[in-house]
Amino acid sequence: MAKKDAGSRVRDALRVGAQLPDPGSTPVGPGKKPKALAKLDSAGERLSALQESLYAEGVGGGTRSVLLVLQGMDTSGKGGTVSHVLGLVNPMGVHYAGFKAPTPAERRHHYLWRIRKQLPKPGQIGVFDRSHYEDILVPRVSGLLTAAERRRRYGEINAFEQELADAGTTVVKVFLHISPEEQLKRLKARLETPEKHWKYNPGDLEARSHWPAYQEAYADIFKKTSTAHAPWYAVPADHKWYRNWAVAELLLETLAELDPVLPEPGFDVDAELAKLKGVGVSA
Amino acid sequence: MAKKDAGSRVRDALRVGAQLPDPGSTPVGPGKKPKALAKLDSAGERLSALQESLYAEGVGGGTRSVLLVLQGMDTSGKGGTVSHVLGLVNPMGVHYAGFKAPTPAERRHHYLWRIRKQLPKPGQIGVFDRSHYEDILVPRVSGLLTAAERRRRYGEINAFEQELADAGTTVVKVFLHISPEEQLKRLKARLETPEKHWKYNPGDLEARSHWPAYQEAYADIFKKTSTAHAPWYAVPADHKWYRNWAVAELLLETLAELDPVLPEPGFDVDAELAKLKGVGVSA
Repeated sequence: MAKKDAGSRVRDALRVGAQLPDPGSTPVGPGKKPKALAKLDSAGERLSALQESLYAEGVGGGTRSVLLVLQGMDTSGKGGTVSHVLGLVNPMGVHYAGFKAPTPAERRHHYLWRIRKQLPKPGQIGVFDRSHYEDILVPRVSGLLTAAERRRRYGEINAFEQELADAGTTVVKVFLHISPEEQLKRLKARLETPEKHWKYNPGDLEARSHWPAYQEAYADIFKKTSTAHAPWYAVPADHKWYRNWAVAELLLETLAELDPVLPEPGFDVDAELAKLKGVGVSA
Repeated sequence: MAKKDAGSRVRDALRVGAQLPDPGSTPVGPGKKPKALAKLDSAGERLSALQESLYAEGVGGGTRSVLLVLQGMDTSGKGGTVSHVLGLVNPMGVHYAGFKAPTPAERRHHYLWRIRKQLPKPGQIGVFDRSHYEDILVPRVSGLLTAAERRRRYGEINAFEQELADAGTTVVKVFLHISPEEQLKRLKARLETPEKHWKYNPGDLEARSHWPAYQEAYADIFKKTSTAHAPWYAVPADHKWYRNWAVAELLLETLAELDPVLPEPGFDVDAELAKLKGVGVSA
């Protein structure tokens, strides 16, 4: 079908391999801001059309959906990505869920409990701003996760994502990859700009102080949970314009491959048109 | 505060009175499409900034939120309003809920049960695409609601919305007012355009055949549930460009009046800046 022409160029280039790309690099697609902005614009139009088709498929009884999982160090741009990429499509078809440190009530459940409650419905694009991967990252870096428990969680997560794939949800996992230098700039800007203070959390420094441990934990996650049905992509994120373009393209290629099918009308079009003329409206 | 300058001009003009405005009229604001589109654009920027502040207030522990209730006959443009107006702000801060005919499981509960589950969280803008008002409209027009039951539901709904106001949720109820002639055009377009078939439902004709009864039911609803804490607005909706501008302005005036307060930092900014410099990152 014509719609499939988005191909898999960006997904192929950004799929996590042995080595992550440089956070300031532009390994595929536009290398300059003006071109990236223009391309994001046109990607937005196609994304919007495909999203409407996916939504229509859901209305028609289809079961497919997409789940975008966003992970990355603090200030890597998860919120900005939601705004600039998901902001391109109809909010009716988007389900956003942000996962902060679990509450005491959430801690009494299995860590996937709160995740399952936020899965996209048929026809929707779900977005996770942080996710179940935090349940490996944080306790691991804090030294609270035994190797055995870690293995168990990898197994559970792979099984969970397989279950999602079986249920018709295409999972797209994106690591927004920033450099520690860029994070320093962004944290500084949050502290120096009063309107940005609310985005700053003293805990961010604690996480920053464990930077190498987090990178190691991510590398292990990529190795253990990059599956055919739920691959990881690493998006260089020091340039916001590149990050937005790249995530939009990953979504676009994914939706184009799904090639959503508009439902067949469950009614006789000509008969309805004839009836329509007959249904007068008197005041 | 400067932010309050959006005033209440549009709210005052569109608040439901004894007579609804003509569906093709433009009782306040731009009377032509190009001007309305330009004004929607600039409203979008202010709306987006205010929404971010409301979101920040919520992150900082604030409890306030906004709930936009969209009602109107089929094809009146509820979905288009969500796309063109809520699409102007960050999806992180928007919670959309569409209410179709209740499922058998939902019917076993009180009609407000499923509504309560979809209320906006602090800092969010919630959008109801149809709402608890369908639980008066549909059974009333079908002749399934006794006068006593209707009175009871009005009381329940007013109490429910008072409860929302008390909890910090500003409710903005909008009736998208189209003419039967415009509906005829739009239903015809849905039937004549294969890509729009999925938006058509044979039940739309049934509702259309009861047009005067629905108008009467709405008039009664406006009379019984227009309260100081949750007023109804009638937006002339035959012109999509006017509808979008008007709903954006209603939201904008509402948010400007809320005048969201960025939270005070719960940390010492200078101390954090000093610490930030000390937190090195070694590979």
